[in-house]
Amino acid sequence: MKKIINDRENVVEEMLQGMVAAHPEYVKRVEGYDVLVRKNSPVQDKVALVSGGGSGHEPSHGGFVGKGMLDGAVAGEVFTSPTPDQVYEAIKAVDGGAGVLLVIKNYTGDIMNFEMAAEMAAAEGILVENVVVNDDVAVENSTYTTGRRGIAGTVLIHKLAGAAAEKGLELKEVKRVADKVVKNVRSMGMSLTPCIVPAAGKPSFEIGEDEMEVGLGIHGEPGTHKESIKSADEIADQLLEKILDDMEVKEDEEVAVMVNGLGGTPLMELYIVNREVHKKLGEQGIKVYKTLVGNFMTSLEMAGASISVLKLDDELKELLDGEADTPAFKQL
Amino acid sequence: MKKIINDRENVVEEMLQGMVAAHPEYVKRVEGYDVLVRKNSPVQDKVALVSGGGSGHEPSHGGFVGKGMLDGAVAGEVFTSPTPDQVYEAIKAVDGGAGVLLVIKNYTGDIMNFEMAAEMAAAEGILVENVVVNDDVAVENSTYTTGRRGIAGTVLIHKLAGAAAEKGLELKEVKRVADKVVKNVRSMGMSLTPCIVPAAGKPSFEIGEDEMEVGLGIHGEPGTHKESIKSADEIADQLLEKILDDMEVKEDEEVAVMVNGLGGTPLMELYIVNREVHKKLGEQGIKVYKTLVGNFMTSLEMAGASISVLKLDDELKELLDGEADTPAFKQL
Repeated sequence: MKKIINDRENVVEEMLQGMVAAHPEYVKRVEGYDVLVRKNSPVQDKVALVSGGGSGHEPSHGGFVGKGMLDGAVAGEVFTSPTPDQVYEAIKAVDGGAGVLLVIKNYTGDIMNFEMAAEMAAAEGILVENVVVNDDVAVENSTYTTGRRGIAGTVLIHKLAGAAAEKGLELKEVKRVADKVVKNVRSMGMSLTPCIVPAAGKPSFEIGEDEMEVGLGIHGEPGTHKESIKSADEIADQLLEKILDDMEVKEDEEVAVMVNGLGGTPLMELYIVNREVHKKLGEQGIKVYKTLVGNFMTSLEMAGASISVLKLDDELKELLDGEADTPAFKQL
Repeated sequence: MKKIINDRENVVEEMLQGMVAAHPEYVKRVEGYDVLVRKNSPVQDKVALVSGGGSGHEPSHGGFVGKGMLDGAVAGEVFTSPTPDQVYEAIKAVDGGAGVLLVIKNYTGDIMNFEMAAEMAAAEGILVENVVVNDDVAVENSTYTTGRRGIAGTVLIHKLAGAAAEKGLELKEVKRVADKVVKNVRSMGMSLTPCIVPAAGKPSFEIGEDEMEVGLGIHGEPGTHKESIKSADEIADQLLEKILDDMEVKEDEEVAVMVNGLGGTPLMELYIVNREVHKKLGEQGIKVYKTLVGNFMTSLEMAGASISVLKLDDELKELLDGEADTPAFKQL
């Protein structure tokens, strides 16, 4: 296991300390918990957004805490749902009186623990709503999920619902926006390599020297199948076709595109994928309004990529363009 | 060779097309050349910055083209200096009458080709100055270099000299700032894995399953030595000690820190390194004014990290804080 770590049982704690040391102008730690919140939390009378999940997906989610995106992020152990008490502390730390929206990726453990935390918070009189992200079109049900999984599209919920909250919309409206983004976004990924959870010390799955795994989840859960490595264009076409088959996007309509790296793939390769995504969308007359290329939702050092497509309307375009200022995503 | 590419001889061209497709609001291509320039180039009466070098270091340098950083970036073949005619086209495309500063990493090929381009441009009456970055404290002289190599610290030259140009300073002053940053910045890196240049198809060097290479360059050139993998803290201490030994930073002075990933290392590990860097600097009474953690100057999919430390004064702090708006680095 080749990793730059100290104690493999302590990576989350040390990472959080490193994040707070790096970004004190953005985040602070909720003392005693694996929770990062905005430095100026709670923001009075603004709806607050909390997300989180297992660690190992950095910059998700702590990297997106800041103006225009999240108010709080809860870091579970690597690829492990955070416990309800951690989520509960995040909710309490960020609520400024206007309520809290929980952005939950569709994994059984996450849903159970975030919902339990929501009940605890509601019992204290905090308004809480949630949205469940299930953007992955690869498979119905999977190792850790009933229904579709939540993957990189989650970051677009953070961005757009975060912008809605920043604009001063009330909780029900922010939830409406988040639900609309969930309804409009689809993603699918592939990988060339597994990754190694530090505490486990061995690869999450096996894959041949000339194989790729198509449709896998962000924890290395099996996808649709293994096949021999294709060209970047063939990979892009394959993922995009499955995504568009599941969406209603017509000619002249506008979308946002995210080409996301899983942690171990060079930016060069992501741009080569993006080239084909734009080409194919262009051939179908679908207009790309904005493109994000980079590592947004990773799986430790896994080599691979996912594509997300978000169908836009005027409201979503305005929110997508909203100012954001977080460690990992900024927009002037 | 597991890569998401098409034709391995055509990766730079396809990457550039993917970058322009992704970021039309920031960059445009100089037609017929592997050069990206600001969309609104040339900016009249502003000193323009041009950098570049071999590809494979993304987001360097094309990702830093935009307000407050570079005006143009020249992309050579992977790990290969761009030819003088490419650099010359970049200079012509960005000169807005106030002259052009070339930011060159200290590799023999880069220096020769950038200087030849500068002569060609000077012959056309364009004011050109250059700055040579040699921040790597690992080794004197190396495979491709006489003297010290230029590595991740180069991005700080882009940021600070870019801010100076944006403020309206004249060419000589922008060069003075760039030279000051070069004088004040030191870096050193290590890696756990080699990387594979697509056209070569095989790893750039060999390294054992429990070994790391210390002090290597961003093209996998040998460093000081191989040794068995150490803990993140020991790695951070080792790099930082060598860096600080080469700088004059005293108690209560301020620095900027960049913990840079080489392409295949998860952000989690970079933050764990950053934790120790802050701890050690703190113990010495050195104050960290700003921290950057992420992939700024990569070596394709190489797993590894470098640390850069920049000694600050009031002028450099103001420039570091200046607004930047580029695909890969933004600051509000």
